Amino acid sequence: MNQILYGVAYYDEYMPYDRLHKDIEMMKKAGINLVRIAESTWSTYEPQEGVFDFSHVERVLGAMEEAGICVVIGTPTYAIPAWLEKAYPDILAETKKGREIYGRRQIMDITHPAYRYYGERIIRKLMEVSAHRKCVIGFQVDNETKHYNTAGKNVQQQFVKYLREKFDDNLEALNKEFGLDYWSNRINGWEDFPDVRGTINGSLGAEFERFQRKLAADYLAWQAEIVREYARPDQFITHNFDLDWRMYSFGVQPGIDHYQAARALTIAGIDIYHPSQDNLTGAEIAFGGDDARSLKRDNYFVLETEAQGFAHWLPYNGQLRLQAYSHLASGANMVEYWHWHSIHNSFETYWKGLLSHDFKENDTYRAASVIGNELIKIGSHLVNLKKKNKAAFLLSNEALTALEWFPIGGTPQGGRIGYNDAVRFVYDELYKLNVECDFLWPESEELEEYDLLIIPALYAASEELLARIDAYVANGGHVFVTFKSAFANENVKVYADCQPHGIDKCLGISYSHFTVPVDVKLSSDRYNCPDKGVRTFMELVNPDTAQVLASYDHPNWKRYAAVTRNRYGKGCATYIGCWTSDGMLSEILADTLKEAGIWDENRKERFPVIIKKGVNDFGKEVTYYLNYSFDRQNVTHGGKDGVELLSGEAVNSGKAVKNGDVLSLEPWGVLITEQEGC
Amino acid sequence: MNQILYGVAYYDEYMPYDRLHKDIEMMKKAGINLVRIAESTWSTYEPQEGVFDFSHVERVLGAMEEAGICVVIGTPTYAIPAWLEKAYPDILAETKKGREIYGRRQIMDITHPAYRYYGERIIRKLMEVSAHRKCVIGFQVDNETKHYNTAGKNVQQQFVKYLREKFDDNLEALNKEFGLDYWSNRINGWEDFPDVRGTINGSLGAEFERFQRKLAADYLAWQAEIVREYARPDQFITHNFDLDWRMYSFGVQPGIDHYQAARALTIAGIDIYHPSQDNLTGAEIAFGGDDARSLKRDNYFVLETEAQGFAHWLPYNGQLRLQAYSHLASGANMVEYWHWHSIHNSFETYWKGLLSHDFKENDTYRAASVIGNELIKIGSHLVNLKKKNKAAFLLSNEALTALEWFPIGGTPQGGRIGYNDAVRFVYDELYKLNVECDFLWPESEELEEYDLLIIPALYAASEELLARIDAYVANGGHVFVTFKSAFANENVKVYADCQPHGIDKCLGISYSHFTVPVDVKLSSDRYNCPDKGVRTFMELVNPDTAQVLASYDHPNWKRYAAVTRNRYGKGCATYIGCWTSDGMLSEILADTLKEAGIWDENRKERFPVIIKKGVNDFGKEVTYYLNYSFDRQNVTHGGKDGVELLSGEAVNSGKAVKNGDVLSLEPWGVLITEQEGC
Amino acid sequence: MNQILYGVAYYDEYMPYDRLHKDIEMMKKAGINLVRIAESTWSTYEPQEGVFDFSHVERVLGAMEEAGICVVIGTPTYAIPAWLEKAYPDILAETKKGREIYGRRQIMDITHPAYRYYGERIIRKLMEVSAHRKCVIGFQVDNETKHYNTAGKNVQQQFVKYLREKFDDNLEALNKEFGLDYWSNRINGWEDFPDVRGTINGSLGAEFERFQRKLAADYLAWQAEIVREYARPDQFITHNFDLDWRMYSFGVQPGIDHYQAARALTIAGIDIYHPSQDNLTGAEIAFGGDDARSLKRDNYFVLETEAQGFAHWLPYNGQLRLQAYSHLASGANMVEYWHWHSIHNSFETYWKGLLSHDFKENDTYRAASVIGNELIKIGSHLVNLKKKNKAAFLLSNEALTALEWFPIGGTPQGGRIGYNDAVRFVYDELYKLNVECDFLWPESEELEEYDLLIIPALYAASEELLARIDAYVANGGHVFVTFKSAFANENVKVYADCQPHGIDKCLGISYSHFTVPVDVKLSSDRYNCPDKGVRTFMELVNPDTAQVLASYDHPNWKRYAAVTRNRYGKGCATYIGCWTSDGMLSEILADTLKEAGIWDENRKERFPVIIKKGVNDFGKEVTYYLNYSFDRQNVTHGGKDGVELLSGEAVNSGKAVKNGDVLSLEPWGVLITEQEGC
Repeated sequence: MNQILYGVAYYDEYMPYDRLHKDIEMMKKAGINLVRIAESTWSTYEPQEGVFDFSHVERVLGAMEEAGICVVIGTPTYAIPAWLEKAYPDILAETKKGREIYGRRQIMDITHPAYRYYGERIIRKLMEVSAHRKCVIGFQVDNETKHYNTAGKNVQQQFVKYLREKFDDNLEALNKEFGLDYWSNRINGWEDFPDVRGTINGSLGAEFERFQRKLAADYLAWQAEIVREYARPDQFITHNFDLDWRMYSFGVQPGIDHYQAARALTIAGIDIYHPSQDNLTGAEIAFGGDDARSLKRDNYFVLETEAQGFAHWLPYNGQLRLQAYSHLASGANMVEYWHWHSIHNSFETYWKGLLSHDFKENDTYRAASVIGNELIKIGSHLVNLKKKNKAAFLLSNEALTALEWFPIGGTPQGGRIGYNDAVRFVYDELYKLNVECDFLWPESEELEEYDLLIIPALYAASEELLARIDAYVANGGHVFVTFKSAFANENVKVYADCQPHGIDKCLGISYSHFTVPVDVKLSSDRYNCPDKGVRTFMELVNPDTAQVLASYDHPNWKRYAAVTRNRYGKGCATYIGCWTSDGMLSEILADTLKEAGIWDENRKERFPVIIKKGVNDFGKEVTYYLNYSFDRQNVTHGGKDGVELLSGEAVNSGKAVKNGDVLSLEPWGVLITEQEGC
Repeated sequence: MNQILYGVAYYDEYMPYDRLHKDIEMMKKAGINLVRIAESTWSTYEPQEGVFDFSHVERVLGAMEEAGICVVIGTPTYAIPAWLEKAYPDILAETKKGREIYGRRQIMDITHPAYRYYGERIIRKLMEVSAHRKCVIGFQVDNETKHYNTAGKNVQQQFVKYLREKFDDNLEALNKEFGLDYWSNRINGWEDFPDVRGTINGSLGAEFERFQRKLAADYLAWQAEIVREYARPDQFITHNFDLDWRMYSFGVQPGIDHYQAARALTIAGIDIYHPSQDNLTGAEIAFGGDDARSLKRDNYFVLETEAQGFAHWLPYNGQLRLQAYSHLASGANMVEYWHWHSIHNSFETYWKGLLSHDFKENDTYRAASVIGNELIKIGSHLVNLKKKNKAAFLLSNEALTALEWFPIGGTPQGGRIGYNDAVRFVYDELYKLNVECDFLWPESEELEEYDLLIIPALYAASEELLARIDAYVANGGHVFVTFKSAFANENVKVYADCQPHGIDKCLGISYSHFTVPVDVKLSSDRYNCPDKGVRTFMELVNPDTAQVLASYDHPNWKRYAAVTRNRYGKGCATYIGCWTSDGMLSEILADTLKEAGIWDENRKERFPVIIKKGVNDFGKEVTYYLNYSFDRQNVTHGGKDGVELLSGEAVNSGKAVKNGDVLSLEPWGVLITEQEGC
Repeated sequence: MNQILYGVAYYDEYMPYDRLHKDIEMMKKAGINLVRIAESTWSTYEPQEGVFDFSHVERVLGAMEEAGICVVIGTPTYAIPAWLEKAYPDILAETKKGREIYGRRQIMDITHPAYRYYGERIIRKLMEVSAHRKCVIGFQVDNETKHYNTAGKNVQQQFVKYLREKFDDNLEALNKEFGLDYWSNRINGWEDFPDVRGTINGSLGAEFERFQRKLAADYLAWQAEIVREYARPDQFITHNFDLDWRMYSFGVQPGIDHYQAARALTIAGIDIYHPSQDNLTGAEIAFGGDDARSLKRDNYFVLETEAQGFAHWLPYNGQLRLQAYSHLASGANMVEYWHWHSIHNSFETYWKGLLSHDFKENDTYRAASVIGNELIKIGSHLVNLKKKNKAAFLLSNEALTALEWFPIGGTPQGGRIGYNDAVRFVYDELYKLNVECDFLWPESEELEEYDLLIIPALYAASEELLARIDAYVANGGHVFVTFKSAFANENVKVYADCQPHGIDKCLGISYSHFTVPVDVKLSSDRYNCPDKGVRTFMELVNPDTAQVLASYDHPNWKRYAAVTRNRYGKGCATYIGCWTSDGMLSEILADTLKEAGIWDENRKERFPVIIKKGVNDFGKEVTYYLNYSFDRQNVTHGGKDGVELLSGEAVNSGKAVKNGDVLSLEPWGVLITEQEGC
């Protein structure tokens, strides 16, 4: 790949009138060189069982090929035709809330044989008409796949078989590990297995969710295998992962394990939707990018992101461009908008595309045109950006699910939070400090490649993983661990000896009590942040070998530690036992980064100025200076002498920049320098 | 009709002991001359299938006739007997939430043959014992009829047949018009039609709601036909419509189309419940009255309104009287309380009547007695009040439903509003300016009778309707149009060429973008209202031929227009592209009224003083001066010399008033003058 | 019983590894002399139908017996095994929300024959292995029993038969009494009886809930009968009642009638969970204690209370001890924690026991050890504390249910409250005034034993009960009655003559109107509380013979009374017609207590100092001085000269205290004096 793919999702099927050639003309003008098609219109391609009509696909392929626009083919399986549901009503998922009702996408039982049978056929038929086309550069299998809470009898029967295998047919072991004696939930015969949808046992419930995530990953792998039969070596197979959704992309996805599912792909892909206007920070772009880049430890595709999006996301002047370069700065090789045009009917009518419903040139389209034409000019210097980060987050779907069963802190009346709140609490402060990072998962083997592991709320973790963390520190690594880590094992059985378990020696602490802070502040000589408040949750930490960095300012809790640091073997472990203010966390993190030797004393810039770096195909260092504010910002160029890429007529004619030069960033502006690496 | 009907709903069936003669005595003392009976007690009249017992009806008719009290017979069909549900369980409506469970009223499938069969029989039996009675002056068919979300298989099958007719059996046309390709929702065979309850397609969903409203109107027409067979020429057929319910009567009713359903009636009726005490404004009385009066373009009945009502509605001294005259001032010929006595069991125990549970004379009863006896004296001068309004609202059930699918502005987290919010936003400010108005609907043919059309959020409108508006302005009319108008067609398909569609020329504007205002104010030299804030929603309007009356005060949106005016042909069109403060809207409206030539420069009074006018049976102008406040208010009589009707011992003996006289209104007080018309 | 039982719930079944002997060692060290076992682990004892395994029970009994620790055997029936549900799926309760799904406890149909059959068998089998053991001092039948909303066809059929008996087969009487004519709900044949789950009739609905409560009481009586066959004379039969749950024990339990159900027991038991840390007031300990003590008019067991409990309940230093003595001060003979150890799996993982998940000694365990060892020393002087209270609350399940159907005040938008809010409103102020009280129920026969009856919101009450209250006052009693009393009869039929009904003469008032206060204050020369605000609800009271103590400060309501007092016969009745501030209520209550002659002018102490008294087995008066605050408090000893029990090495060696001595209470501290009674 030697260019940035700048594209849109395109739906010829949805057009109120024939727009194809006019749209391509507008795309070309805007520098758009990619479209994704076909990923949600099964009922158009197979109007009746066994009757196929790919005329929309073929005419779009023909026109795009002629225009020199690349095409990604999406398999159309994430929404099923009405005739299929009519013939096989139980193809719709049965969830905790009962059988789904036809209408929405992503409501089928992805394990149902009828779904698999017809799904395979439509994929093969689509591949037959499209895979050989020159313009087709790759495939997206399904879309935003998750398990959709499928939990019908067939799924539960498979779950029981899965458990029999996991526990080697030993029911006693299962009862013990999951603690099923409690409230008479003990299962004394496999044939007695109750409907798991009603369980109140967090271990059994979490195991079922792990099984459901496995179903989703298996399903994607099955699709990838089919597509692989048709794909040329130069064609990629990707998937459009999505993150935990809080009306924007927020954190680790509970419905599928990205790390597990990505194994079937050749390139990782993701969609990233984020707050905008005054709330645009770039944090979601960075988070989603770090996730996708870390899955295959390589460049990735942003297969969907917002153009206009929701009405409250309509970008300010400069923001669309800032966003695009922020994706590239994280290592994306593709920025694709969802979608080209705003839809005139149905459901996502107000999730607007590059074009409004009137198909006219508008502010957002014009902003995209600027970007597209810049990329034509300098894209070859931006593509395939490689990074070598020194810090990594350790993330876990097991911890996420377990903390859905047992939320952190607060009270039943409110204030409780989950895993992703804790993840983003730490991630966002690191982001604001301009420290780039990778993501790791419990199965990752690259722990030792990093100087610092950041471990937020690793509530459920196996003995083996905890032993690896202990060894990592003993061998010279640095860890930053938060509250609610190492509490339970991977089966959500709370460790019965000590909290935190397994890393208590390396952290040099333990605790038996925790509570919800009311009028509690941190007490510390070390940190200056004026907001010393403690929120939501606090552990009453007993230091053992650890140094106390902060304790609690409260008449009853003052004897306990809140933040500690422990030198252990050749390494060092910092622990934060409570939810602090953002500013306080930032100070503790900076302190830890210094300890870990990955703090650049010369780097003064912090959010809203964001700096990201990497090495391009020419072996040069590329630095992005990004201004996430409505105010003009000055930033000091902190690399070797080089050239600012956006300022020239051609890529080589950009303005020269020297080490120490003060660069001026426009409101929501961006500058990109290229120089020899340090 | 030569008297005001002043009445109560009366339920002999609910009495804890025999009260009939005592109640009539109290009614007579209070000047009550009307009771409505029978509308909800089917199980009493037909205790077992085919066994009839109208003893309650007959004894009440006998006693009322003897007392000279008029009776309205309500058909008892809006709540079904237990035996009927027991025999035909599927007579209860199946809705999105599943089959209803017996208990509440208004939960049956109004299309079910068993319901129609037994419903017709009980109506006929009731007519047989009552229609011929002298005291019976008319009939109310059913009560507060709506479609009750009926959506069972039978209803859906009828819906498919309705669609086949609408689209002339052309599925392709339906798919195209509704945009069903989206998310694979395309229907490729009528037999594949999925359960519409699950649809996420706004066009299909809105069409089903339109069909459901049609079922409700057809049902009422069916009842009216039956009753008509028994009715004398002097007996009316009415219905008790109710408004959109937000724990009081708020706006356009989504569950039935009043305009469509009123065709079957001879006189329109309505119930109006409204805030009280410090929150009593009269706006709901005016809104409901304008609705009911406009349905048949004639006087109407208030078939239910609150006496004591909810505990928090208990009227202050003077309020009950102010309310009654406000109804008459809007053109009502009947004010009927729900209900005579407070109920001792069941559900609406705390929806109190004129009498409390103790049946004693109380403050509310005494207030009613004052009104009743005044009406005996002056009612003949108040009845049949005719109006000739110059302004009209254009209201639409299609727009209402469409904006339920696609709410206005805000964010998914909150702040979104619907059609009726926009309607009342404008209506209430006009009301406070003391400009009376009529209501029109898309099917109305009287547009040209008005000098000013007010068009709030006409989101979904046909080409034909928009063309009529355009022509109306071109021919000299004035329109006041708000945001979110002319966006989609009557099938909720967004217009693909331009927003606003069809009236863009007449408005002289267009827009491609809209957003949610955050810290946005209006910028205008023209308007003085100190609260310039913009809320909830804003369109980024590009003026074409229009004059910009206000633009946005915001760094990123300042280049766009917010309020515009366009001279077009012989007329003029004002557009407001955002949700302003109430005060700002009031100024813009006043400005528009002046432009339209319907602003009386001499009229200084505004809310809380409300003035309404009309012409009575004697050809005289009657003016109501209403004080909606706890403070005494002065008001200047602004008509010819006449007489104040309430002040005299007899109708002719009232106090003389001259043009320019300052009248003093008591707290929550009312004065009524009669004079020659201007 | 000659010692305080200080115990824990103990679950050998839940242990992650064999802990029995280590646990017993730790218990002994802490002075724990009691465990409750077996109450929730049916599936462990009967792993398959008819296969029994009581090894856990037997090994615990053996070990406890050896250690000299008493054991309470709980029948394990409140959670059913998976095999039982698998074989009889309809054993799960069918409620308004449909059939329950297996998982939670307390979801079965307690009337189902299969449940009764297998339930009886497991109880008998458990009794056979345990009842004869010396260490077993008694039995707890089931746990926190309620009706679980069971409402399947079988239950409803029984309900119809119950109604036929109640109304002597007279449907007409039922229709009349319940007002079923309303909304066509009349039932004209027993075979037409509709599904009661849908009823909107408050009388029918409340009757069904009364029937459901009866089912729960009958079920407990059935269990008690079985257990009684095995129990020795020295073994008690108790039950663990729980209160209305608002995430802590709040008020009267709606799901079972404590008074009715307690008849089957030999000793009453209760669980009490309450706010902690800064929110610890002792009010729930007092309320629950007064409830349990009054059920059998004797000492009672606290069968469950919190050790660590929820994270936000983790006790401050001193609180666990303060709590334990507060239970004893109310007359408890047992304080038992739920539970010994924190659970490592499932659902209540974060409802922590004395031990945390690490099983280590911790702050809470150490606090318990102090208590346990004190009790060994002085327990014989605290056990069997007898009280003779002069004030009593009259509480009613009928009123509670009726006010769930018809909440007090507020508006449909919010602010509505229920029976328990009113109960606690009054109870808590009395508690803070240090006046101890008993509870009475409509069936109680001991009214005359009290000088003052406090009657909060007795909304639904029979003629007979109201006549008893009237006679009580006439004969010299004092009553304090609040708003919403005597409004409806025991069948929730509003009295049709007068409110309040039946006690209007004794109160010397009546009212026909009530409303929701907005900006209303009390107007009174008598009371000084600065917060005169009226909230939620106000009756517009017309005094007849009563003296007006306070009226309303509001332009429209000023003519009405708010608080009245009436001398009637030999007694006196105080009425409070609105929801006042807490401070104002406190003044009115104090005033009433003086009137009733049960106000000790010398008693200055009020909350946060709480004083409770009683007479011990030695005929001595025992006084508890309890400090519910973080501040040190001084309190004056107000009895004869005696000894402070906690301060000595042995019970007889405590510090001497004299009348008038000022005692100093530590933060959250307690002192106990023993002296001759006055």
